[in-house]
Amino acid sequence: MTETATPLALVVLAAGKGTRMKSDLHKVLHPIAGRPMLMHLLASADALEPQRKVVVVGAGREQLAAALGDSAELAVQDPQLGTGHAVQQAETSLAGFKGDVLILYGDVPFVRTETMRAMLERLHGDDRPAVVVLGFEPEDALQYGRVIAQGGVVTKMVEHKDASPEERACRLCNSGLMAVRGDDLFGLLARVGNDNAQGEYYLTDIVNVANGDGRVCAVVVTDDPDEVAGINSRAELAEAESRWQKKRRLQAMADGASLVAPETVWFAWDTVLGRDVTVEQNVVFGPGVTVADNVVIHAFCHIEGARLESGTSVGPFARLRPGAVLEEKARVGNFVEVKNAVLHAGAKANHLTYLGDADVGAGANIGAGTITCNYDGYFKYRTVIGERAFIGSNSALIAPVKIGADAIVAAGSAVSRDVADGELRLVRAEQLVKPGWADRFHDAMKRKKAERK
Amino acid sequence: MTETATPLALVVLAAGKGTRMKSDLHKVLHPIAGRPMLMHLLASADALEPQRKVVVVGAGREQLAAALGDSAELAVQDPQLGTGHAVQQAETSLAGFKGDVLILYGDVPFVRTETMRAMLERLHGDDRPAVVVLGFEPEDALQYGRVIAQGGVVTKMVEHKDASPEERACRLCNSGLMAVRGDDLFGLLARVGNDNAQGEYYLTDIVNVANGDGRVCAVVVTDDPDEVAGINSRAELAEAESRWQKKRRLQAMADGASLVAPETVWFAWDTVLGRDVTVEQNVVFGPGVTVADNVVIHAFCHIEGARLESGTSVGPFARLRPGAVLEEKARVGNFVEVKNAVLHAGAKANHLTYLGDADVGAGANIGAGTITCNYDGYFKYRTVIGERAFIGSNSALIAPVKIGADAIVAAGSAVSRDVADGELRLVRAEQLVKPGWADRFHDAMKRKKAERK
Amino acid sequence: MTETATPLALVVLAAGKGTRMKSDLHKVLHPIAGRPMLMHLLASADALEPQRKVVVVGAGREQLAAALGDSAELAVQDPQLGTGHAVQQAETSLAGFKGDVLILYGDVPFVRTETMRAMLERLHGDDRPAVVVLGFEPEDALQYGRVIAQGGVVTKMVEHKDASPEERACRLCNSGLMAVRGDDLFGLLARVGNDNAQGEYYLTDIVNVANGDGRVCAVVVTDDPDEVAGINSRAELAEAESRWQKKRRLQAMADGASLVAPETVWFAWDTVLGRDVTVEQNVVFGPGVTVADNVVIHAFCHIEGARLESGTSVGPFARLRPGAVLEEKARVGNFVEVKNAVLHAGAKANHLTYLGDADVGAGANIGAGTITCNYDGYFKYRTVIGERAFIGSNSALIAPVKIGADAIVAAGSAVSRDVADGELRLVRAEQLVKPGWADRFHDAMKRKKAERK
Repeated sequence: MTETATPLALVVLAAGKGTRMKSDLHKVLHPIAGRPMLMHLLASADALEPQRKVVVVGAGREQLAAALGDSAELAVQDPQLGTGHAVQQAETSLAGFKGDVLILYGDVPFVRTETMRAMLERLHGDDRPAVVVLGFEPEDALQYGRVIAQGGVVTKMVEHKDASPEERACRLCNSGLMAVRGDDLFGLLARVGNDNAQGEYYLTDIVNVANGDGRVCAVVVTDDPDEVAGINSRAELAEAESRWQKKRRLQAMADGASLVAPETVWFAWDTVLGRDVTVEQNVVFGPGVTVADNVVIHAFCHIEGARLESGTSVGPFARLRPGAVLEEKARVGNFVEVKNAVLHAGAKANHLTYLGDADVGAGANIGAGTITCNYDGYFKYRTVIGERAFIGSNSALIAPVKIGADAIVAAGSAVSRDVADGELRLVRAEQLVKPGWADRFHDAMKRKKAERK
Repeated sequence: MTETATPLALVVLAAGKGTRMKSDLHKVLHPIAGRPMLMHLLASADALEPQRKVVVVGAGREQLAAALGDSAELAVQDPQLGTGHAVQQAETSLAGFKGDVLILYGDVPFVRTETMRAMLERLHGDDRPAVVVLGFEPEDALQYGRVIAQGGVVTKMVEHKDASPEERACRLCNSGLMAVRGDDLFGLLARVGNDNAQGEYYLTDIVNVANGDGRVCAVVVTDDPDEVAGINSRAELAEAESRWQKKRRLQAMADGASLVAPETVWFAWDTVLGRDVTVEQNVVFGPGVTVADNVVIHAFCHIEGARLESGTSVGPFARLRPGAVLEEKARVGNFVEVKNAVLHAGAKANHLTYLGDADVGAGANIGAGTITCNYDGYFKYRTVIGERAFIGSNSALIAPVKIGADAIVAAGSAVSRDVADGELRLVRAEQLVKPGWADRFHDAMKRKKAERK
Repeated sequence: MTETATPLALVVLAAGKGTRMKSDLHKVLHPIAGRPMLMHLLASADALEPQRKVVVVGAGREQLAAALGDSAELAVQDPQLGTGHAVQQAETSLAGFKGDVLILYGDVPFVRTETMRAMLERLHGDDRPAVVVLGFEPEDALQYGRVIAQGGVVTKMVEHKDASPEERACRLCNSGLMAVRGDDLFGLLARVGNDNAQGEYYLTDIVNVANGDGRVCAVVVTDDPDEVAGINSRAELAEAESRWQKKRRLQAMADGASLVAPETVWFAWDTVLGRDVTVEQNVVFGPGVTVADNVVIHAFCHIEGARLESGTSVGPFARLRPGAVLEEKARVGNFVEVKNAVLHAGAKANHLTYLGDADVGAGANIGAGTITCNYDGYFKYRTVIGERAFIGSNSALIAPVKIGADAIVAAGSAVSRDVADGELRLVRAEQLVKPGWADRFHDAMKRKKAERK
C-alpha cells in the first residue's frame, strides 16, 4: 500500500456453506461477467498491493485451491464456529505479520478499491482506532446488525434481534468488513466469547471488546450500498450480474460506443471497446475480447477471446471463439464460426462457414458454406489461404492444406491437396442427367403416398 | 374434491368477444408460456378433481371444441345477455347436479388452486353462505365493482358507476369469480333482472338476491391481485406472460439453476430443469423440455420437445426440435439443428449441422456442415450412425443409410449406401488442376468490370 | 400548412458539437429505429408542408449535406456564438420570406406534428403573440430555464441560475422550440445582446425583447415531456431508442400482433405489421419490412428490406436481407439467409441455406445446406428454380443456372448447367470403399497420440 506505507494482509472469508445456491460449485467461484466472484474481489484488493492473502475456506477447499493456485494461501476452518473463529484460522498464516489486516468476504465481491483504501486510511487516523468497520445505509435495513456511532466513532455494534427500538431506528448497518492492525487482531479475537444463541464467535464482537478497553473504534460509510451486497442465492447472483452489467454498459456508452439496446449487451470483466463502435441488440462478450474503433457488431453475436481491428464488421449471428482475429476491415457474416483463425485485412467470410485453425489472406473471399476440415478425430491441422484467394461456395478445405494467392477453388470442391498461386482447383464429378426421371419419381411417390392413406 | 367430499362442477365463462385482441383466434386460446390460457386455468382447477366442466362459449365455439376435445362440455350462449345469462346456459348440462359450482373465467387464467379451494371451503363454513365471491385489493381500484363487506360477510355488491363516494373509498373489488351450491345457483339466477343501463343479466346480482332472502354471502380475499388479472388485449397478454416468466425464473434459480440474465430466459409451462444447470442469455424453451443436472445451455438457444441428460452442453445458437435427445455428455454446438434424433453418450455435432431422423452412436463425431438428407419430398428416412464413427465435414448422409461403428466418412462425401464397421467411405471426384487459370480469370474479369463502369 | 394558410419555414439548429457523443458521426445523424434522428424530426415537420427548410450546421456539414441532399438548405454557423446567433445564420436563406418560422433542434427529434401545429395555431391567436415558446413540465426541473407565465402568456424567460427561489419553484420549463413570424424574427434577434457569462446570443432573449416592446408572447405546453427530450450522449440516445420502441410495441399489440416478449422486439421506423401476426422473442426489424396478416416470426430473427406475405413463417434464427420476398405460405427456417430472392407461394427453405439473387418457384423445396453460388468475386448471377422443384441437401447451385419445374437435384450435387423440367441431375463421384481402413487409421492415430503425451 503506497498511501500508508504499512504492509497489508487480506483475510478473505469463504467458508460459508452456500446452501441456498444448491450447487456443487463453491459459492465464491460462481462467475459474474465471466469471472469467479472471488476473483473480482481479489482484483480490487490487489490494487492495494497486499503482501499477504489468506482465504479461509470450509467445504470445497480443493476447488478454491485449484482456482487460486499460489496467488493466495488457504486456511481451513473446520468446524465452523462463526466469523470470529473463521478469522482466527488465519492466525498461523499471519504469525509475525506486522501491518494492517483487511477482512473481506468472498461473497461480497464488489467492494471498491477506494472503499478499502478509505478504511485503511481511517485506521491510521489521528485517533488511532483499534478497528475500522465498514457501514452502509440500505434503503431497507431489514435484519442487518446496526452500527451505533457518533461522529464516525462506534459506540456499540448490535445485532438486529438484540437492538432496542431506538437502535433499530438507526439506519447505519454493519457490512461485516473490517480493518484492524495485525498487532491487535488476534488478541482481540481471543477475548471474544460464544455466549449467544448460536454458540458462535462473532467477528463483530472485537469492536465491543476494544471499546471495553477504552479504545476508539471507527466506522467508514460507503455511499453505495450495492458494493457491500452479499450473494447467497442464484437470484442474488443474477442481481449482482445485472448491476455489474448496467454500470459497464453506461461506461461503454460514455466512452463512445452506441449500444442500440444496452440491456441486451453483456460484457465480460475484461472487454475492451473502442470509440465509434456500434453494438446492436443481443451481443454476448465472453472473456478476452478487444474491439478497436469504428467496428460494427450486428445483432445476435457471441464473441470470446477475439480481437476485432478497426473497421471490421461481424454478424448478425456470428460466433467468434478464442483465437479469432479480424484484421482491418475484415468481415464475418451470418451463421459463421471462427476459431483460432486470422482473417487478414479485408478478408470476408459472410455466410454459413466454419473457419477453424486457419489463416485467411488479405482480401480473400470465403464463399458461403465453406468448411475448414481441421480435425481428423485425433489431431487438429491448419488451413492457409493466400491473399485474394476465392473459395467457392460449399467447399471443404481438408487441412493441412494451403491455397495460394489469387487461387480459385471451384464451388462444391473438397480440396485435400495444396493449390498453387493463381491456380484453379475443381473437384467435381460429371453431371449425370436423367431426363424425365424426376417426373416418373413424382408419379411413383404420389401413388405410394396415396396408398398409405 | 377431497377436502369437502362434495362433488364439484366448474362453469368457465368464455363467451366474450375478445374484440380488443383483434384476432381470429379465440381469446382464451391465446397462449402463455406455450399453453392456451384456458388450459392453464383448467389445469389449476383440475387439482380439485371436478366431476363436471362446462365451458360457456359464444363465437369461435369450433376452435374451443377442437382445443378441449372431450375434456369439457360446451354450452353455447347466443345471444349474449350478460354474465348471469352466460352461467344460465350451463343449466341444461348441470341438470340434476348436486354439489358445488365454481364459476371461473377463461380470460382470468392464473387463479391458484389454493384460492379456488379457499372459496369452496368458505362455502361450507358454519354460516352456510349462499354465495362466496372472490375479492381482491388492487393498487388502483379504477372502475372495478366493489364488494361492500364486514367481517368477510358481504352486505352489498355495487358497480363502480353506481357506488357512493364512501363505497368507492372501499378498496375491496369484485373479481367476478364465485362459488355457489348447485342447488342454489340456477334458482338465484332466475330471479336476476336486466333492469340496468346495458339491459344485461349480471351474475353479481345473485348476491343481492340472496341477501334479500336474508341469506349470508361471503367474500374470500386473495392476497395476490395478479391472480385475478383479466386478459383483454395483446398488451395484457404480454403482461401476463411476463409475470408468469418472472415467477418461473425465480423458481428455477431457487431450485439451483444459474440464469446469467434471467430476464432473457423464457420457459414453457412444463419445462423441467435440474440442479447446477447453467442457462446463458437468450434461451427459449418451447413445450416438452427436460433438462437434467450439470447441463450448460449456452446463449441463443431454442429448445422444444427435447431431453438433455446429465453433463450435456448445447449452443450457442443451437436449435433442438421435438424428439431431440442428448444422452450423457453429448454436445450440440453452433448453428446446429437436431430433430427427432438421439445423440448417444458423448456424441458431438459442433458446427453447422442438420441431424434429422437420426441415431448417432456413443462417441461419434459429426463434422462441421454435415447434413442428414432425411426427406425425398414425400417420405422421411432414418440415418443410423455407429459408435465412435467419424463423419467428415461437409458430408451428406442420404437416408436411409447406416454408418458402421468406428467407420469414417471422408470430408465432402455424399453417402447413399451403407458403410460397414471400421470402413472408410470416400466420395470425391478427381482434383482437376488448371495452373494459371485463376490469374487469367482475374485479368479478364477486371477488364470486364472496368468496361462496365 | 393547411390550417393557417400561412407559408411555413423550418429552422433546424444542428450546430452543436456533440462532444459527449465521442463520435466522428454528426450527432443528429445518429440513428434511432434505423433512421437518423434529424430525419425523424423532419418527417414530423413535413406533415405541416413547410415551404422552406434551413438546417444550421457547424462542424460536420459535409455529413449533413450528404444525408439531406436537396431536401433542405444548409446554413453554416462559424464561429458559434449561441442559439440566437445560430438562427441568425438562416437570415440569408430566408430573405424575403413572409410566413411563419418554426425553430426546431436536430437533437430534439421526437416533437410531434400536433405539437408543432399547436404552436403555429397559437401564433395566429387573437392576441397575435410575437413569439410562441414550447414549454414542458418535467418530473424534475433540474437546471432547465423557466418560463414564467400567467394564463398562457409569458411574462419572463429566466435561466435557472438567474432564477429567484419563487421562479425556480415554477415547474414550467423552456424547451427552446419557438414559433415566430418571419417578419419579426430577424428584427428581434438583431436586438439580442451577449452581455452574459458565456458571451453568447441566446434565442430565448427574443421573448424578453418582444415583451419590452409591449408585445404578447405565449407559451404552449406539451403534455408529454418526453417529446422535448434532447439527446446529448449515447446513453440519452439509447433512452430515446428505448422510449420509441416501447411506444411502437404497444401500437403493434393494439393493432393485433402478439409479441411474446415485447421488450425483445425492435422495430424500424417504417415497419408495417399485419393482424394476427405473432412475433416471438428477440426479433430485430431493420428498415423496409412489410409483414402481412397471419404471419409467424419465430425467435431470433433479423429482418430488413423484406416482404412477408400472408401465412408465411420464418425462423427461428432466420436472416432476411433486402429484396427477400416470401409469397403466401412460403417458409424460411433456421440458419437460413435470404437476400434479393423471391420464394413463391409455398416454397420452403428450412435449414442452413443461403439463397441469394434467386427466384424459387411455388412449392419448391430447398434442402438443408443448399447454397446458391451467386458471386464469382466480380459479378453476381441469378439462380432460377422451377415450381415444385426439389433441391437435395448440401447442393451448390452455381449461378447463372436454371432448375426446371418438378426437377430434382440429387443431394450433394454442385450444379453448374441448367436442369430441364422433370429431369434428375446427379453430380456425384463413385463411392470408394476401403474396408478396414478406418480401423487401421484409428490404431495408428491412437499410437501417435499416446507417443505425443
